[in-house]
Amino acid sequence: MSLLVVGSVAFDTVKTPYGKVDEVLGGSATYFSVAASYFTPVRLVAVVGKDFGDEPVRLLKGRGVDVSGLEVADGKTFRWSGEYSEDLNERTTHATHLNVFESFRPKMRRQDKGAPFLFLGNIDPDLQQQVLGEVKPEFVACDTMNFWIEGKSDSLKRLLGSVHGLVINDSEARLLAGELNTVAAARRLMDLGLKFLVIKRGEFGAALFQGGHYFAVPAYPVERPVDPTGAGDSFAGGFMGFLAREKKVGGPAMRQAMLYGTVMASFCVEDFSLRRLATVSEKAIDARVAELRGFLDVDGPSRKR
Amino acid sequence: MSLLVVGSVAFDTVKTPYGKVDEVLGGSATYFSVAASYFTPVRLVAVVGKDFGDEPVRLLKGRGVDVSGLEVADGKTFRWSGEYSEDLNERTTHATHLNVFESFRPKMRRQDKGAPFLFLGNIDPDLQQQVLGEVKPEFVACDTMNFWIEGKSDSLKRLLGSVHGLVINDSEARLLAGELNTVAAARRLMDLGLKFLVIKRGEFGAALFQGGHYFAVPAYPVERPVDPTGAGDSFAGGFMGFLAREKKVGGPAMRQAMLYGTVMASFCVEDFSLRRLATVSEKAIDARVAELRGFLDVDGPSRKR
Repeated sequence: MSLLVVGSVAFDTVKTPYGKVDEVLGGSATYFSVAASYFTPVRLVAVVGKDFGDEPVRLLKGRGVDVSGLEVADGKTFRWSGEYSEDLNERTTHATHLNVFESFRPKMRRQDKGAPFLFLGNIDPDLQQQVLGEVKPEFVACDTMNFWIEGKSDSLKRLLGSVHGLVINDSEARLLAGELNTVAAARRLMDLGLKFLVIKRGEFGAALFQGGHYFAVPAYPVERPVDPTGAGDSFAGGFMGFLAREKKVGGPAMRQAMLYGTVMASFCVEDFSLRRLATVSEKAIDARVAELRGFLDVDGPSRKR
Repeated sequence: MSLLVVGSVAFDTVKTPYGKVDEVLGGSATYFSVAASYFTPVRLVAVVGKDFGDEPVRLLKGRGVDVSGLEVADGKTFRWSGEYSEDLNERTTHATHLNVFESFRPKMRRQDKGAPFLFLGNIDPDLQQQVLGEVKPEFVACDTMNFWIEGKSDSLKRLLGSVHGLVINDSEARLLAGELNTVAAARRLMDLGLKFLVIKRGEFGAALFQGGHYFAVPAYPVERPVDPTGAGDSFAGGFMGFLAREKKVGGPAMRQAMLYGTVMASFCVEDFSLRRLATVSEKAIDARVAELRGFLDVDGPSRKR
């Protein structure tokens, strides 16, 4: 089933202990789309500037992503630059230039309406609500960030009552819920009307709360994580892409989707930008998912790695 | 099978967002012993001062811990005081008074020699090596800490070549290996000759490296973690205690032991000192292990919580 994603496309300048890249393709919707593209047809709705160029478009098209909803506006593409600490667990933002993204108003076309699966990337929650109202999907999940949690908490909480699921970082979940403990935060967020909640914990994996059920998956162990940028978005893309492919959103499908999300995040961090994420094979994805299953299997047989 | 543990017994003064306690029973070997006591006979070798009193001894004996190797030395019992951050993830030590623990020289008695299972708690690695040489157990694991990693790295690395396993915090594992990445650190530590390595990650669970196999378990979700002190030691106690009970140390037993360690840590954090850990029932332990299995089960049926 086709999956529609609305979010940001950017050029990132990133420094990590493994190196530095300048103005490489990034943005949450970009990582999401490419990760999801291994599972299902993806349509990307986002905005870029006149400076975007052909190369990133070729990369997206090469992955089969439908970029007909990628608006090219007067001005420059969103730019972010930042740096990670030695252990990669802290990120310092040096500059955020929203550029054309600042006045982004997602335009839903006739063909976008009724898309069965929708992912509302991290934009103004009022816009997320508007897109949701126009698309009226069968299944919808969203992401958000500190900026909206602090600035538009009411809009955001209203949105959470209208979507099926939220896929969010642990620190943001705690901030949004006003709780210091992640488990308590999850309970409070679920009470807002969510059917499911995925809490992403970076190198520590991710947890799924769904109805009264809980499921947790460790990160796929990567010995040389070059750049964590986009890992959470790649997780969300793998997760939603898998559900869209399976056309199932029940407990067992969602648990499997957690494995696929985890594996897409692991590929993402193995190189800068989308270098690795955009070039993996389905065979490599399935092999890593099988390995991950083994890492969770109390009764073995455990798999070699 | 009986399990011998050598380590510290202390009085702790602890402040967390949930309250404050003064001079309560603590120490790594104390938490370890009590957690392990639910599975197997435990003998504790440690030192306390003349001020130790009867009450802590009664608690240990009440759990069936053999305290005949608890030496009472002239002087005061080891004291530690510290405070946790709001999210419990950072700990500030206010005072460490080693007192009688400073000159602790574990005395192995005739009955300690040949103990089948041994856990070398966090003491000077030269003393750990000496105890190991005297006991000559069938199966031995150890713990350590920053102080020894920084001060006695060579002794410690030699010790790791003589034990079966190491149970250690993730930050300490990275420090000991000289690696910024936990997976890379694990690989390097295994190369020192370990048969297995458990990396403890607090609220994020724990990972097991064993031969070429990997297994990861999330923390049992606790909504109101009152005091994390002793959680890692309780994990180690549950882990080793289970193995001693099963008289098995292969892959499947060790994976199950990871669940029991996780569950004992979850009880530990639910109250200050050993208040909760010392008063759980075997039924409650088994119920939580069954729940935890459900949280790891990709194919469900997932369990309600």
